[in-house]
Amino acid sequence: MSISLTPEELRAITGATRTSGQTHATITGIASLEAAEAGDLSFLGNAKYRTAVPSSRASLILLPEDYEGSEPGEGQCYFFVKNPSAALASICSRIEQSLWPKPQAGVHPTAVVEAGAEIDPTATVGPLCVVEEGARIGARTHLQAQVFVGAGAQVGDDCWLMPHSAVSAQCTLGNRVRLHPGAVIGADGFGYEFVEGRHEKIPQVGTVVLEDDVEVGANSTIDRARFSQTRVGEGTKIDNLVQVGHNVVIGKHCILCSQVGIAGSATLEDYVILGGQVGVSGHLRIGKAAKAGGQAGVIADVEPGAFISGYPAMPHRLASRLQVLQRRLPDLFKRVDQLEQQLAQT
Amino acid sequence: MSISLTPEELRAITGATRTSGQTHATITGIASLEAAEAGDLSFLGNAKYRTAVPSSRASLILLPEDYEGSEPGEGQCYFFVKNPSAALASICSRIEQSLWPKPQAGVHPTAVVEAGAEIDPTATVGPLCVVEEGARIGARTHLQAQVFVGAGAQVGDDCWLMPHSAVSAQCTLGNRVRLHPGAVIGADGFGYEFVEGRHEKIPQVGTVVLEDDVEVGANSTIDRARFSQTRVGEGTKIDNLVQVGHNVVIGKHCILCSQVGIAGSATLEDYVILGGQVGVSGHLRIGKAAKAGGQAGVIADVEPGAFISGYPAMPHRLASRLQVLQRRLPDLFKRVDQLEQQLAQT
Amino acid sequence: MSISLTPEELRAITGATRTSGQTHATITGIASLEAAEAGDLSFLGNAKYRTAVPSSRASLILLPEDYEGSEPGEGQCYFFVKNPSAALASICSRIEQSLWPKPQAGVHPTAVVEAGAEIDPTATVGPLCVVEEGARIGARTHLQAQVFVGAGAQVGDDCWLMPHSAVSAQCTLGNRVRLHPGAVIGADGFGYEFVEGRHEKIPQVGTVVLEDDVEVGANSTIDRARFSQTRVGEGTKIDNLVQVGHNVVIGKHCILCSQVGIAGSATLEDYVILGGQVGVSGHLRIGKAAKAGGQAGVIADVEPGAFISGYPAMPHRLASRLQVLQRRLPDLFKRVDQLEQQLAQT
Repeated sequence: MSISLTPEELRAITGATRTSGQTHATITGIASLEAAEAGDLSFLGNAKYRTAVPSSRASLILLPEDYEGSEPGEGQCYFFVKNPSAALASICSRIEQSLWPKPQAGVHPTAVVEAGAEIDPTATVGPLCVVEEGARIGARTHLQAQVFVGAGAQVGDDCWLMPHSAVSAQCTLGNRVRLHPGAVIGADGFGYEFVEGRHEKIPQVGTVVLEDDVEVGANSTIDRARFSQTRVGEGTKIDNLVQVGHNVVIGKHCILCSQVGIAGSATLEDYVILGGQVGVSGHLRIGKAAKAGGQAGVIADVEPGAFISGYPAMPHRLASRLQVLQRRLPDLFKRVDQLEQQLAQT
Repeated sequence: MSISLTPEELRAITGATRTSGQTHATITGIASLEAAEAGDLSFLGNAKYRTAVPSSRASLILLPEDYEGSEPGEGQCYFFVKNPSAALASICSRIEQSLWPKPQAGVHPTAVVEAGAEIDPTATVGPLCVVEEGARIGARTHLQAQVFVGAGAQVGDDCWLMPHSAVSAQCTLGNRVRLHPGAVIGADGFGYEFVEGRHEKIPQVGTVVLEDDVEVGANSTIDRARFSQTRVGEGTKIDNLVQVGHNVVIGKHCILCSQVGIAGSATLEDYVILGGQVGVSGHLRIGKAAKAGGQAGVIADVEPGAFISGYPAMPHRLASRLQVLQRRLPDLFKRVDQLEQQLAQT
Repeated sequence: MSISLTPEELRAITGATRTSGQTHATITGIASLEAAEAGDLSFLGNAKYRTAVPSSRASLILLPEDYEGSEPGEGQCYFFVKNPSAALASICSRIEQSLWPKPQAGVHPTAVVEAGAEIDPTATVGPLCVVEEGARIGARTHLQAQVFVGAGAQVGDDCWLMPHSAVSAQCTLGNRVRLHPGAVIGADGFGYEFVEGRHEKIPQVGTVVLEDDVEVGANSTIDRARFSQTRVGEGTKIDNLVQVGHNVVIGKHCILCSQVGIAGSATLEDYVILGGQVGVSGHLRIGKAAKAGGQAGVIADVEPGAFISGYPAMPHRLASRLQVLQRRLPDLFKRVDQLEQQLAQT
């Protein structure tokens, strides 16, 4: 991150109501209270860390308005704000704009746009992108570099497709969709029929639909349906290296952590949360707002609101209890040995 | 999928022997009996769903010749065919051809083909591909876009390498091999020697050989051998995000589901099937037609024909039995408590 | 691998002190003693395989100087060397140079280098690479083909970035860093706040720092920090399809095997080794030189030097013991049944 903000700029961004102390440092980094050095900005986001404020070496600290308990050191400044976390978010948004400035609209001369593709005049098609025939790129959408958009694919407005991401033929992205580098939307589903000792491919001629505000992580893969659609609901966020099989239907506002794998034709209702490396078998239904802990192996339908973990996945409380009892197995075996001996003696 | 087929065209494709009812709708989608809307085609692939036929809103339904039990509704048509699933497959194949029309032979002007690379005149090298020196691309093979083929690599006939797939130097692909987007063939094996507190790289100078009809999923990775070859046998199908380590030998007609990981120098005999997220330790042998359930952790050799699951992987029947008994652990602990109390009282 | 080395060249490379027998074969492959064919070179790397020497069909065999027990066959030659493994390594290094010859310095005419990017004159920017404004590429560094380096990113000296790898804006790579095909450095961390039923994105404005001699495998992903840095220590080696979350700090000389996933803000001290498919929860600390077996689920801090495995991860000895006891559960249930019956009869 290349930050360079003066205390005055930061006061304007954060709307600090009051300041204490003075720093001449230009702020060039953000760090936790403990890790911060001179030149860094820090913040008290949670009252339980307040004892870390006095010893922090940060040049500038965002504090809640009711903070008491220390005075700024030499060359250090406190900013008092309504909500330090929100103030920090404002600063981060500002930095974000400088990290990724709005790109100029237009098609880079090295991009390959086939005949019959429609690029909105406000969209940006960056260097070395390929947009095949009949594809449509919406308003203000940004194809950053080396992106692939296949024939007839539809990309909505205000999307951001990062380097090496790919949208296969005929797939559809809503508005404000983000594809991180290497994400693959619409590769073939994994379907074969076993005929005379060989796996014969079942054509995969459906598509993928990502609704508005979906985000897909780096190198994640979402397969096209056999026919019909693989669908990811509005506002769902998918982390890196996640696999979504063909014909899967994911509801709105779900969270899929890294390396999750969802087998074909499973259904996730809205607000489902899957921890890292969770596996979901094919054709299952995960109820609304259900949660699965990391590495859970889900091999049966899950009730709405349930919290499951373990392999095979079971209610988390049961899983936790079984884990405790398993660790007591050596003792249990001994106790049964003793019982047998005692009984033999009676 | 952008389908647009008239009932007349569909009758010709499916060879329907008889029809009932009439629709004027152009068919623009395929869906299950329950999900279908006007304009969709549906089908009765399995007799157990026959009760869903009368209420289906599909404009056109493929039915077995002996179907009885309902008449088509207003604006709906039944097609009677020998095998509805086979008829559907014919339709899907037709759609597939329009989804991915045969590309024109030749090298796109934006592709970079180094001196000494041999491109068959019937092959297609799409936009922004790189083919390094000494590589050979076979007849009718299609490098779609932004594909990388390294120095001296050999790609056979009728292959399809999709966007952002990569074949590293000196690797070999047989005929009819498909690489989905982002697949990486021939990255270095993961081999180091620990020398004086540092991991020194062991050169990985072998190759990867993919035999005929191998398919590799999106963003899967198959590492080159230390020396000699990492090899994937004829007809083996590999799903997305799968890792195959260096010097692994995979037999013919295996199935590796998504996110499987196979450590170095393991051997899979023919017809092995590994479920999603299965892990196989290095230097193991998995016998012919053995199957491993999802998330299994294979840490020992597996007998031909075995069906294993769990961690560490064990015969599936044993794993299932242990899962049942584990859930009865709370009860078992109570029973042992009671036995001890009883015995203390006698 | 395309080897073509004469026995004379190999004698020079290996510094063989003595030879026995004679071969006219040009060596075109390397294989184990058992797998080798005429034209191959083989070697006795470990004394326990010495009985495989007499029957090996290799044209040339590297043997330790004190080897006794067989004479070379017709058209076969033995080379006696101080250390056959070291001699083989010398040969492999030679082959490596021919596999990946030193590229010519300079920027390929099809690469897109934005204004304000600094490319060292000894660096190579290969075909169809993109280097955004303000990025810096160090001496002798090689961007092979179709690589992406974002705005303001810093790539050190003697690095090798392979096809389709990506370094996002402002990230920093030290010297001698290798990114394998499809590796993604600096995608957004996975951070959201749940506000009024929607997941609002938390800006991810930090960076990633890869120190000297780090190697990142094919299609692995390392996320940028929320603010501050995600950091990978000197000499750490990361295999394929590994996920490293935002704000993770990895020490020096660690080994992360394929498909490992490390959640946000976890810390790995130096010399940690994680087996394939290991998952590490967020905010944990893994002590120096700790090891985790394949598929371990690490959900608590780990002591330095510990060896853990299983789910949830526990000391490996305990995990092994519990596995043994679990397999004896059917028997234990029977024994408790019998105890109950016996006690009922007394």
